[in-house]
Amino acid sequence: MIELRSDNAAGVAPEILAAVEAANTGSALAYGGDDLTAHLQEVVRTVFEHPTARVFPVTSGTAANSLALSAATPPWGAVLCHPTAHIIGSEGGATSLFGGGVVMRGVDGAHALVEPARLRATLEQVRWGDPHESQPSVLSLTLPSDYGTVYLPEQVGELVSIAREFGLRAHLDGARIANAVAALGCAPADVTWRAGVDVLSLGATKNGALSAEAIVAFDDRIADELVYRTKRAGHVTSKMRFQSAQLTAYLTDGLWLRLAGHANERMAELVAELQSLSPYGVRLEERVDVNMAFVELPAPAIDVAAEAGLQFYRMGPSTVRLVTSWQTTVEDVKEACARLREAVLGADGSTG
Amino acid sequence: MIELRSDNAAGVAPEILAAVEAANTGSALAYGGDDLTAHLQEVVRTVFEHPTARVFPVTSGTAANSLALSAATPPWGAVLCHPTAHIIGSEGGATSLFGGGVVMRGVDGAHALVEPARLRATLEQVRWGDPHESQPSVLSLTLPSDYGTVYLPEQVGELVSIAREFGLRAHLDGARIANAVAALGCAPADVTWRAGVDVLSLGATKNGALSAEAIVAFDDRIADELVYRTKRAGHVTSKMRFQSAQLTAYLTDGLWLRLAGHANERMAELVAELQSLSPYGVRLEERVDVNMAFVELPAPAIDVAAEAGLQFYRMGPSTVRLVTSWQTTVEDVKEACARLREAVLGADGSTG
Amino acid sequence: MIELRSDNAAGVAPEILAAVEAANTGSALAYGGDDLTAHLQEVVRTVFEHPTARVFPVTSGTAANSLALSAATPPWGAVLCHPTAHIIGSEGGATSLFGGGVVMRGVDGAHALVEPARLRATLEQVRWGDPHESQPSVLSLTLPSDYGTVYLPEQVGELVSIAREFGLRAHLDGARIANAVAALGCAPADVTWRAGVDVLSLGATKNGALSAEAIVAFDDRIADELVYRTKRAGHVTSKMRFQSAQLTAYLTDGLWLRLAGHANERMAELVAELQSLSPYGVRLEERVDVNMAFVELPAPAIDVAAEAGLQFYRMGPSTVRLVTSWQTTVEDVKEACARLREAVLGADGSTG
Amino acid sequence: MIELRSDNAAGVAPEILAAVEAANTGSALAYGGDDLTAHLQEVVRTVFEHPTARVFPVTSGTAANSLALSAATPPWGAVLCHPTAHIIGSEGGATSLFGGGVVMRGVDGAHALVEPARLRATLEQVRWGDPHESQPSVLSLTLPSDYGTVYLPEQVGELVSIAREFGLRAHLDGARIANAVAALGCAPADVTWRAGVDVLSLGATKNGALSAEAIVAFDDRIADELVYRTKRAGHVTSKMRFQSAQLTAYLTDGLWLRLAGHANERMAELVAELQSLSPYGVRLEERVDVNMAFVELPAPAIDVAAEAGLQFYRMGPSTVRLVTSWQTTVEDVKEACARLREAVLGADGSTG
Repeated sequence: MIELRSDNAAGVAPEILAAVEAANTGSALAYGGDDLTAHLQEVVRTVFEHPTARVFPVTSGTAANSLALSAATPPWGAVLCHPTAHIIGSEGGATSLFGGGVVMRGVDGAHALVEPARLRATLEQVRWGDPHESQPSVLSLTLPSDYGTVYLPEQVGELVSIAREFGLRAHLDGARIANAVAALGCAPADVTWRAGVDVLSLGATKNGALSAEAIVAFDDRIADELVYRTKRAGHVTSKMRFQSAQLTAYLTDGLWLRLAGHANERMAELVAELQSLSPYGVRLEERVDVNMAFVELPAPAIDVAAEAGLQFYRMGPSTVRLVTSWQTTVEDVKEACARLREAVLGADGSTG
Repeated sequence: MIELRSDNAAGVAPEILAAVEAANTGSALAYGGDDLTAHLQEVVRTVFEHPTARVFPVTSGTAANSLALSAATPPWGAVLCHPTAHIIGSEGGATSLFGGGVVMRGVDGAHALVEPARLRATLEQVRWGDPHESQPSVLSLTLPSDYGTVYLPEQVGELVSIAREFGLRAHLDGARIANAVAALGCAPADVTWRAGVDVLSLGATKNGALSAEAIVAFDDRIADELVYRTKRAGHVTSKMRFQSAQLTAYLTDGLWLRLAGHANERMAELVAELQSLSPYGVRLEERVDVNMAFVELPAPAIDVAAEAGLQFYRMGPSTVRLVTSWQTTVEDVKEACARLREAVLGADGSTG
Repeated sequence: MIELRSDNAAGVAPEILAAVEAANTGSALAYGGDDLTAHLQEVVRTVFEHPTARVFPVTSGTAANSLALSAATPPWGAVLCHPTAHIIGSEGGATSLFGGGVVMRGVDGAHALVEPARLRATLEQVRWGDPHESQPSVLSLTLPSDYGTVYLPEQVGELVSIAREFGLRAHLDGARIANAVAALGCAPADVTWRAGVDVLSLGATKNGALSAEAIVAFDDRIADELVYRTKRAGHVTSKMRFQSAQLTAYLTDGLWLRLAGHANERMAELVAELQSLSPYGVRLEERVDVNMAFVELPAPAIDVAAEAGLQFYRMGPSTVRLVTSWQTTVEDVKEACARLREAVLGADGSTG
Repeated sequence: MIELRSDNAAGVAPEILAAVEAANTGSALAYGGDDLTAHLQEVVRTVFEHPTARVFPVTSGTAANSLALSAATPPWGAVLCHPTAHIIGSEGGATSLFGGGVVMRGVDGAHALVEPARLRATLEQVRWGDPHESQPSVLSLTLPSDYGTVYLPEQVGELVSIAREFGLRAHLDGARIANAVAALGCAPADVTWRAGVDVLSLGATKNGALSAEAIVAFDDRIADELVYRTKRAGHVTSKMRFQSAQLTAYLTDGLWLRLAGHANERMAELVAELQSLSPYGVRLEERVDVNMAFVELPAPAIDVAAEAGLQFYRMGPSTVRLVTSWQTTVEDVKEACARLREAVLGADGSTG
């Protein structure tokens, strides 16, 4: 079986598991009052080159997004995001729950990326100050998007800048941000606070952690709220040192970017193969910027590939999603390519 | 340093860490769609001798309590519990948040345990059906209580039975339930569903897990709600198999009860020493049923003991809380006893 | 000045004010425990030909909609409605607030009416039972729509029937339902419970009441919830008899339909005039089924008409909304027609 | 029948009904954009001698309290109030709902009034900054209390001053504040903003209005929040001018204080009679500062009085609550006194 369903399905990177084991000595104050959590604060400030950033370890991406947003918006606000955003379609309304009834509103754009002109048009049509209309309060960008596409740092900056003109704050859903940073080759600061982002959901679990995500607040007012909001949502683990140890190992010596870069490279290899199959009805449905591809295939080929041991999600009768992870090996990709080729050529009766 | 602050400060039991390591092979479906989580369901049903119980792994006790309660009450309900309950004093209002504005209402009783007669009196005075009054909807018992005292199975049964007369459901906050079951020598079922409990917060982290608690629902309607409520609260971890592995190891071959029994025994040794110091102003403020003691000491002795390396919480000028854990050794206790004796006798020395 | 901004701007119908005055005798139990409220229950059951319908007087349409919906959906639900629905765009997120974080999701269609095929397609694509996706739970139809168009009874029935196939409940936002019923010439039951609607927001204020709207629940489980939900939202007035008196007068002897029919007729007269101006750049942007028209006019004509004393809302540089009410007189309409004609002909330089 | 159940049972004062009738001319912008509401703002500023106070008309006392509190507290806050406060016992958890899960916490004191020493002790024991504990954020005082007792202006000032030391804001539940101001003979400002109160629930319905209460915010940040919070709770009536007309009439030329003073005087007459019956087992259970008395009577006398046409609430087997209103006449009181005397003496007759 070759795992291409989700990077969520991958295991724990050895360096991170080792850090958990190393943290298991003696005793330590609970709820983040331990040395490892204090150390993580320093690590985050160094990695993000921000002297006052504050980090809140949590255990799910949904928690990171919805709590970060709840701390950045009043309950009568509206969170603007792309219609394909995870917070709209895949978090069961968590943002509305933690936001006290806040609403989410889609702003469209090609490649699953918010388009600046549409954002501006949306904001210009708001009846500001009129309580009948939920007041846009936060722009939430997803980087990479749920379709595996990335904004350039200057694109993040442009969008956030438009949002700021109208008084909005900016959130970045970075469930896979390591894959974006690795692909962009930029500094983590470049796509976050230097581009105006106030608060970041920093993913780690999909990219090799055991059970650790984090909220990184670049704005102290948001951080002050998160102290209380994380706790009352049950998102302050008692033995937080074990989350902090994971995150510290993850962010140290560039491990997070190495793991993500590895996943991106494997996807690039897979994409090269897929492109070579374009004469046989194989087509990429979206740009592949990181470790995720949406691929149109002849419908019979999908069944054959699945029977041959490839694991992936079906998005429609002739579309699949393929995702690589830190754990995907070069051999996995070679094998996957071979089986895909076989499935596609087999399905292409005209060549038979 | 001898750790007596909280069992939350302890590390991870070797068996549980080993289970996490063993779970780190290959890939697996995220969000609980994995084999380890399926297996955990069977383990829980066996341990609790209940054919249809359903388990929801989460990562904090606050999450377990507040989500379990939110699934058992309408938003206009009132959760009845002892005034010292963790859900009232130590969870930042999580139950009111997840409960959609549900309120908590104290019902008093000696030894931090709800008194049956008061429970009945409270329920008899409710203006049932009158929407001006929050309608009592769930009885939440804490076992052991936040003061380390336990209900007997028949006491749980009596309280739940009174609650049921008035249409309430029953929740058990079992953040330390292993310590209670070990102390009572009963079956886990005896203090839960056989006593009428509908939903249980099953603690594990304080007793040797890394980051795992669970909600165990004995009522299918509550379980059906939890499917959605856990997710939208960000309490469905993506790599859930690592929580499930911890919980399975914990509940297998009685590990949970051995770890808890160990903690209880260490506390018993400590209590014996404390009682022998009663001529010198040392007094247990509360019954010690499990692994937690509230002790009155001469104020100067408290400072001396702290300087001598004993770690504990001060509850007042002459009161401390001592907690043992699965990690507390016989040597730790001997050493703690020696230092406490010295501190107390020294404080008393001037009069000697 | 001729009032065409909104039927909300009109005053109180004499029959309704008289009923309020008549209710002001002696004393009566508060919070709905009075005879007038008991009588209203009977009136509603008679008017809607439903033996067990239950009515809850409130004081705003937003309250009626959001409380009705909150009683019909679990908090993880999604309310489906047309993207132009009042609950999405004009109630400040009330449905998400009272619904405990429920979300709203648009289902499009021409004429501001939900299209059956799109509703079915939306429902077929839902990942039912997957807590990542907010689960569609209620279909909310607006009759007439916020653009003044109406569903026929059989169209309501078809949409509700599709919704029911997938387990949804049905809500009707009837802020102006009297206008729809008057226009359709049907029985009130035909567009509500006979078409499958579970709960209705019954508007009265726009159509001549002082401060009275109502929720009419045709489903007992919804009604049972509303007993508590209305109170804890502050929507059970203490001197409810004065709301009940308004609603009773409103629903008695067809007053509501006479008032609404009057408004519809005045709009029909206005529309006839507007249509006669079509050679001069005047165009109806939407069907006019009740008392509301969206009209495209030459931009200069809009300013002239406003200066001439016509009061209306501008929806864009060359679009206005015109609304008649129970209070609009035949003379008002004649005068409005004359001024509009003047403004339009004057703006039409080519004829000058 | 003589009405002594509640001032809520009374009708509408003629001056207020006349104001509603007078407001019914022409048309006016909805949702508070009308002249009468603008005028009310001025009236409130004059009556309360505060240049920037802002008023928000609503239609229930529960709405006024819970929305005012929600605008003054973060969701992780705790509202401190007397255990007998209306917000705890009689509003169905509205404060927790609108407050996003905020909790209420009782601070006791004699005569249903918060005791300053207890308030200080409570605040000193808070673990400030610790998110495990709901952080006290607002002091809510009820004036008069639900037992009809009043704080002096300096007592309000002292309590608020203690609360401010710890960073809390202050709310006054003034459902019957006119009765208190009339009894105290002070300026309305003296028991509100001059004593440090930030936001007031200004009752009117119990004292002669039809359906009007108001929130008066003396703090602009609270007022800014209320703009949105009132709307999304459905508490911005569309024809707000009719609420504003009621409130303006109420506050003009001292009508509110005349109506309340009348009710207080009638109660004083009743109390004099009750005191004269003390030899026969009649006892006031609480100080009577305004228009409400809690009276212990021989149990048989209660039944006799009820049969004789006195309407009141029974608080226990031998206790009743008596409330007078603006509508209670001198004759009503004479008649009530006569019947009470008869009932009491008759009950005592067997021993005579």
